[in-house]
Amino acid sequence: MTDFQVEVRVTPRRGILDPQGSAVRGALRSLGFAGVGEVHVGRLIVFPVEAESEDAAAERVEAMCRQLLANPVTEDFDVRVTAPAAA
Amino acid sequence: MTDFQVEVRVTPRRGILDPQGSAVRGALRSLGFAGVGEVHVGRLIVFPVEAESEDAAAERVEAMCRQLLANPVTEDFDVRVTAPAAA
Repeated sequence: MTDFQVEVRVTPRRGILDPQGSAVRGALRSLGFAGVGEVHVGRLIVFPVEAESEDAAAERVEAMCRQLLANPVTEDFDVRVTAPAAA
Repeated sequence: MTDFQVEVRVTPRRGILDPQGSAVRGALRSLGFAGVGEVHVGRLIVFPVEAESEDAAAERVEAMCRQLLANPVTEDFDVRVTAPAAA
């Protein structure tokens, strides 16, 4: 078993209202930052996970996303195995 | 002026307590996912911004981070200009 470093990106599904993104955009505008387009705010979850291989690591983390890390109704997720974690 | 797509990663500073990460790790363990190391939960903020150049875009977004997007006491941020946004 090897430790793999994984990165999960959870983002609001396109087309679904993103009130946090709208609030950030409005706040940036109030601060004088013009020229900012539609803002999307998601979560970035990073951790090491033990697995037999990179593929097995990705598969386990996808199961974690479906069960806990993402809301399947409103969010999309993307799993990246970035590297074998340092021993 | 060109639209650049930017990605901001805001993460809890190493060494500072990350209660959300600990909660996620505990919940994964309760669900039967063993072999998960320390979990860090951050934010991923994605938007297009108008600027003269890639460097100018990164500089403006760093100013946004210092003023609004990140908490300088407890969080680190990382700005990536991923591409000129599609016209």
